[in-house]
Amino acid sequence: MPDTIIKIDLNQSAYENDKVHNRWHPDIPMVAMVKPGDDFIVETYDWTGGFIKNDDDASDVRDIDLSIVHFLSGPIGVEGAEPGDLLVVDLLDIGAVPESQWGFNGFFSKKNGGGFLTDHFPQAQKSIWDFEGLFTKSRHVPGVRYAGLIHPGLIGCLPDPKLLATWNEREVGFIKTNPERVPPLANPPFGPTAHMGRLKGEAKDKAAAEGARTVPPREHGGNCDIKDLSRGSKIFFPVYVPGAGLSMGDLHFSQGDGEITFCGAIEMAGWVHVKVDLIKGGMAKYGIKNPIFKPSPITPNYNDYLIFEGISVDEQGGQHYLDVHVAYRQACLNAIEYLKKFGYSGAQAYSILGTAPVQGHISGVVDIPNACATLWLPTQIFDFDINPSSAGPQKFIDGSIDMPLAPDL
Amino acid sequence: MPDTIIKIDLNQSAYENDKVHNRWHPDIPMVAMVKPGDDFIVETYDWTGGFIKNDDDASDVRDIDLSIVHFLSGPIGVEGAEPGDLLVVDLLDIGAVPESQWGFNGFFSKKNGGGFLTDHFPQAQKSIWDFEGLFTKSRHVPGVRYAGLIHPGLIGCLPDPKLLATWNEREVGFIKTNPERVPPLANPPFGPTAHMGRLKGEAKDKAAAEGARTVPPREHGGNCDIKDLSRGSKIFFPVYVPGAGLSMGDLHFSQGDGEITFCGAIEMAGWVHVKVDLIKGGMAKYGIKNPIFKPSPITPNYNDYLIFEGISVDEQGGQHYLDVHVAYRQACLNAIEYLKKFGYSGAQAYSILGTAPVQGHISGVVDIPNACATLWLPTQIFDFDINPSSAGPQKFIDGSIDMPLAPDL
Amino acid sequence: MPDTIIKIDLNQSAYENDKVHNRWHPDIPMVAMVKPGDDFIVETYDWTGGFIKNDDDASDVRDIDLSIVHFLSGPIGVEGAEPGDLLVVDLLDIGAVPESQWGFNGFFSKKNGGGFLTDHFPQAQKSIWDFEGLFTKSRHVPGVRYAGLIHPGLIGCLPDPKLLATWNEREVGFIKTNPERVPPLANPPFGPTAHMGRLKGEAKDKAAAEGARTVPPREHGGNCDIKDLSRGSKIFFPVYVPGAGLSMGDLHFSQGDGEITFCGAIEMAGWVHVKVDLIKGGMAKYGIKNPIFKPSPITPNYNDYLIFEGISVDEQGGQHYLDVHVAYRQACLNAIEYLKKFGYSGAQAYSILGTAPVQGHISGVVDIPNACATLWLPTQIFDFDINPSSAGPQKFIDGSIDMPLAPDL
Amino acid sequence: MPDTIIKIDLNQSAYENDKVHNRWHPDIPMVAMVKPGDDFIVETYDWTGGFIKNDDDASDVRDIDLSIVHFLSGPIGVEGAEPGDLLVVDLLDIGAVPESQWGFNGFFSKKNGGGFLTDHFPQAQKSIWDFEGLFTKSRHVPGVRYAGLIHPGLIGCLPDPKLLATWNEREVGFIKTNPERVPPLANPPFGPTAHMGRLKGEAKDKAAAEGARTVPPREHGGNCDIKDLSRGSKIFFPVYVPGAGLSMGDLHFSQGDGEITFCGAIEMAGWVHVKVDLIKGGMAKYGIKNPIFKPSPITPNYNDYLIFEGISVDEQGGQHYLDVHVAYRQACLNAIEYLKKFGYSGAQAYSILGTAPVQGHISGVVDIPNACATLWLPTQIFDFDINPSSAGPQKFIDGSIDMPLAPDL
Repeated sequence: MPDTIIKIDLNQSAYENDKVHNRWHPDIPMVAMVKPGDDFIVETYDWTGGFIKNDDDASDVRDIDLSIVHFLSGPIGVEGAEPGDLLVVDLLDIGAVPESQWGFNGFFSKKNGGGFLTDHFPQAQKSIWDFEGLFTKSRHVPGVRYAGLIHPGLIGCLPDPKLLATWNEREVGFIKTNPERVPPLANPPFGPTAHMGRLKGEAKDKAAAEGARTVPPREHGGNCDIKDLSRGSKIFFPVYVPGAGLSMGDLHFSQGDGEITFCGAIEMAGWVHVKVDLIKGGMAKYGIKNPIFKPSPITPNYNDYLIFEGISVDEQGGQHYLDVHVAYRQACLNAIEYLKKFGYSGAQAYSILGTAPVQGHISGVVDIPNACATLWLPTQIFDFDINPSSAGPQKFIDGSIDMPLAPDL
Repeated sequence: MPDTIIKIDLNQSAYENDKVHNRWHPDIPMVAMVKPGDDFIVETYDWTGGFIKNDDDASDVRDIDLSIVHFLSGPIGVEGAEPGDLLVVDLLDIGAVPESQWGFNGFFSKKNGGGFLTDHFPQAQKSIWDFEGLFTKSRHVPGVRYAGLIHPGLIGCLPDPKLLATWNEREVGFIKTNPERVPPLANPPFGPTAHMGRLKGEAKDKAAAEGARTVPPREHGGNCDIKDLSRGSKIFFPVYVPGAGLSMGDLHFSQGDGEITFCGAIEMAGWVHVKVDLIKGGMAKYGIKNPIFKPSPITPNYNDYLIFEGISVDEQGGQHYLDVHVAYRQACLNAIEYLKKFGYSGAQAYSILGTAPVQGHISGVVDIPNACATLWLPTQIFDFDINPSSAGPQKFIDGSIDMPLAPDL
Repeated sequence: MPDTIIKIDLNQSAYENDKVHNRWHPDIPMVAMVKPGDDFIVETYDWTGGFIKNDDDASDVRDIDLSIVHFLSGPIGVEGAEPGDLLVVDLLDIGAVPESQWGFNGFFSKKNGGGFLTDHFPQAQKSIWDFEGLFTKSRHVPGVRYAGLIHPGLIGCLPDPKLLATWNEREVGFIKTNPERVPPLANPPFGPTAHMGRLKGEAKDKAAAEGARTVPPREHGGNCDIKDLSRGSKIFFPVYVPGAGLSMGDLHFSQGDGEITFCGAIEMAGWVHVKVDLIKGGMAKYGIKNPIFKPSPITPNYNDYLIFEGISVDEQGGQHYLDVHVAYRQACLNAIEYLKKFGYSGAQAYSILGTAPVQGHISGVVDIPNACATLWLPTQIFDFDINPSSAGPQKFIDGSIDMPLAPDL
Repeated sequence: MPDTIIKIDLNQSAYENDKVHNRWHPDIPMVAMVKPGDDFIVETYDWTGGFIKNDDDASDVRDIDLSIVHFLSGPIGVEGAEPGDLLVVDLLDIGAVPESQWGFNGFFSKKNGGGFLTDHFPQAQKSIWDFEGLFTKSRHVPGVRYAGLIHPGLIGCLPDPKLLATWNEREVGFIKTNPERVPPLANPPFGPTAHMGRLKGEAKDKAAAEGARTVPPREHGGNCDIKDLSRGSKIFFPVYVPGAGLSMGDLHFSQGDGEITFCGAIEMAGWVHVKVDLIKGGMAKYGIKNPIFKPSPITPNYNDYLIFEGISVDEQGGQHYLDVHVAYRQACLNAIEYLKKFGYSGAQAYSILGTAPVQGHISGVVDIPNACATLWLPTQIFDFDINPSSAGPQKFIDGSIDMPLAPDL
């Protein structure tokens, strides 16, 4: 077996593990050095560092301090990597921690993070998903079982100081356009809960005060939450600092396009078997600004879909200009209404859309004023037939089971 | 062979064919009646009614009067269809007009329609795509050849007066928020170029003055430009008027998600073999607002992709809040830059993204402030290897061929 | 549209069409010449030249004179083709004759041709399959509907005299090992019913007496009945005579691996849109003895299968040494027994296995003494759920419909 | 994590592990009892019990005593299972032993086992395949790398005395028809090397003398070597004895259809995560004689193939009657000749066909006298382009590396 260069202990606080960090900053020291061509194992906490429990109480989802996320393993230095190179990362395999074969999905309270449909599901709820080998099912969401499209929600290289400055200016400036918004427009640097890895003392304090939060995807990749960065895929990352500084975390057992529930996919602690290589000067050679990647040859082959359309007219009938976000929200709401006819609660339906290998397509973006988005729901994940028929829907789900909810205090 | 219930003549103006219309209005008379269970053929003009020619001059793309589009065949009445039903439409097969085995793709001038990347490609350009059986290639875009994912860009049932009123209020109200914008925010009813089928005299004039333009997708489906409504798919349409009134047109030989070039996919005249059926009361039974559909079992099996990411930071570095439209634009621009390294002009690369079976995924929409979108470029459509390698890109395209451009006058 | 270089008339006997032949012989004159790079249309009769009718009486299947088959369109000459080249054939598209949107499947009497399961189904039966665009269904076999994997059962180039002599020696010698067998071991040349195209007079008589029958697949390809030579595929054929001499026919709307019913797949008259090219000296360059090919990117995407195993122990318990033929027969018989539990007659089940896009895999051929073969039955072609469950099978088919049978006279 | 109910120690002889056996016999005691609905882990030796080493010397392949195989883990009893039931087995996941991330493939000497192409490769050779997460590659076969289609080559339930007697009579009778053949026609019971699990003393001796060898697939499944029984698949096994008695072993990291090299696929020690359930009386309900199964939704998505044809005319020109075994052998030999043009040795090409996810289809079995079989070679597993072109093949493999060979002594 390859070496495990970063280990985690689920009984230890992520803050005590100095091979972990939760902010992006060029000064965070490399915790291990590898060579091009090496393969190795990286263990990671779940994105909350173990805050969410395997129980039937959603109060942890309600009460979490979101400034602590995401706990990333790294940064890993690659010998010979220089700014302008492409770091080629093969995700050779990914799995859950052996003694922790479960994950969580939930909705944050609108007052604490929210989510894509937070106006419809404003309170904290959660569902627990158990893993059975390559498959998952939930005691809170009956009638579905599917193969995992396992992937890291978050992976990328350290920014250089210039890129970091760009991020901070851009996002802090953006917050200022509506500083009182709930949920906020973006998350500024926040030193008190920053974990800067092996950086200590004044250097740490300085970096913590300016370290970029890990929430958004950015030029380097980062928290892209792309379900198709799954095990078996190959990614080409821009390199900004000597040694590249690759970090990763936020593992998902499965997720739908959009990760619409925000908290989040099926979130888990686990490990990644990684191989690294370099394309020298690759950013300029290929005109690369953001990462590019090739998907895995080994992804679940669900190919029978029921597809829901949405257009950029919102729930109140308001018109939006070619707004794919609004259109996809309508497609999701349409799918939820449909699933409710089979007996699901709205929350269960929302959870399915957030966790199953649902596709979200940008179908039309030029036919003014309406964008059209489509949500592709795989029918083969259901224990029963969800296709429409002249007989009308049968209630296969009897409503006796629902997802735990923790009301706002 | 089934009956051809609507025929077209490419040598005749679409305005002279009274089984064709180019506005949505409940008063447009049915041009044929069919029964549930019937299958039949419907011929259609290309969306412009033959305005764009198979030549090497883009002036037709520059000069088109866009108020004439889209020429639709129908409406077709279905016996027994009532408001609240679902009209089940099987697209049994679709093809080009036998004597017209070609299609066009283009970019409108920013002054006359624009498109998704109109700021980058502000002038009229076009490419002609020849069909070779199930495949297509272009004399203006060398190095690519692919199987057609043939589909109608536009299909749906007539609105009732209330729905029509909703559309007009919503869109006209929206235009008023920025009436001088170029391109406009939306297109209001416009009587002079309306083709109201068999409606004549005063009734026609009245309806023409209020008939909804066919450009945007709406609740009934309409101009969704969903590439996956391809031959072999099954669609469930809401019914609003007695008899349903099914119309269709805007056939595409192939299109990428988003139809980003706007003019448009690979546009063609052709025929659709349709079968219809009803689910009585299906809208309420299944909670349907927009159409739903099942994709075809017979779609091109390209499964090796190179995937480009984009985030909702625009070309000038401006921050947008979870804006998938902006994110997808970045992913497209990233793909264009990449393809240019292999010798393509920007216009050729843009044309490939608009016409090939490219997927556009809504990958992340909750990680404030950045949405993440991905563009999936099938590698198997290229005559050469477009994957990145340590050797760097080879210029397979020598630049001797480009797409015709017609400068603004 | 490309030129139709060979036309057929369904109201005319195939024997009267001099662009058709039913034997392989190097002296058959080319009926058209094309150039490398050309594409063109070839029309073909069904393999029996129209003998089997669209009715509910299987006596035509019982009474057919099998020495008349297969009626092939060609041979087509390709300029510059020389022995040792590879002829590259793109099957750009294939379809049924527009006015003949149906096909037939059947079982020959054991006394007149037989088939893979002739000991179990010794009498003539047939089923008629109607085409609905890209799909087919049968009034004789309820409960199934599927997309066509349309292909020519028979395609290849003319043999040279040496290859022809090899065939005749090999097969006539083989017949002599058991000349009285019913069905026979092979079919020898037979002049009286030979159609030698444009060859006339003595030359015709001589060639007819030695022309190879079209039944078996041979080194040149020929009657391979490979379902995956479907429209969109690309084939590389060995060339033996100057001009190549490409002929084709025996079109199938759909077929399962093995074409086990022999009469045959879903047999139809139709047309093939072909493009030809050459790889000079390709046979030696690539070490080619038999044709090679690449399958189409556009094949039905059925991917949910129920798989039946068979081993090389026959129905009477007899042991055979790594005999895949026997093993596949057991897998087929196992599938038929299974389908009977859902209400199908054995004949209907056999017909489904012969016509639907069933896969037959050579799963194990080294574990002495038993070969293992698997039959892959696509579940998505059924109108109902054929998966096993703890509830046991439900009879969805009530037995009121069966396939016509014509008893031996 | 679920319980590991059978553990192995690679440093211990398989004969010393009493939860292992290498013969089929109803008297072998259950080593563990589980309940319907349980899931659990079963560890297994490689089929030879560790005889073949990870080195560059094929003498172990030459010298192995094949009467010791296959070492199976089990039998496992399932509470409530009775003869006539179907045992439903979900292969939830499968993997290699963590500290043994490699497997072997080889050809036996014709004098000691042989293989599908033993007349062409009569001497012992081997190749070692290293695992990199989900992928494998070999230091002995350059230029290929592919995702594993991991599966147990051998799995099934204990026979009852009657079924065992049938097997022994059938196979011993068969051997008597040609007792001197090399390799033999079949393998009779052989007590000296039998491992009968926990059976001891006289009972063991008696059972060992009549226990069926594990080599062939039989009615219960057994050594089917079906590559598609991969992790994620669901199998329905006939039950013959109370408690079912499920055993498994012979794990393969990857294999082509046919397992043509016999020694074998990519053979490995590993573990299987299994879930069991029952369909009471399922054999009669569904007419089941052999196991049936549903393939996994998670299999490598290679879909670009180069396909080779073979007909039932042997290497010497001899004619065989609809013999799929001969036809598939020709297809394999054709593929090997082709691959040699790119620089591979015949042995390397043979090894690729035996180990990669190659498909073998029974394409035509009714066109007397020739069967047609096809070998589907996935092109995406090669580091270079193996498609034919007018330029002719390029030698990407320089011949400097070959597979170790151990000459017969």
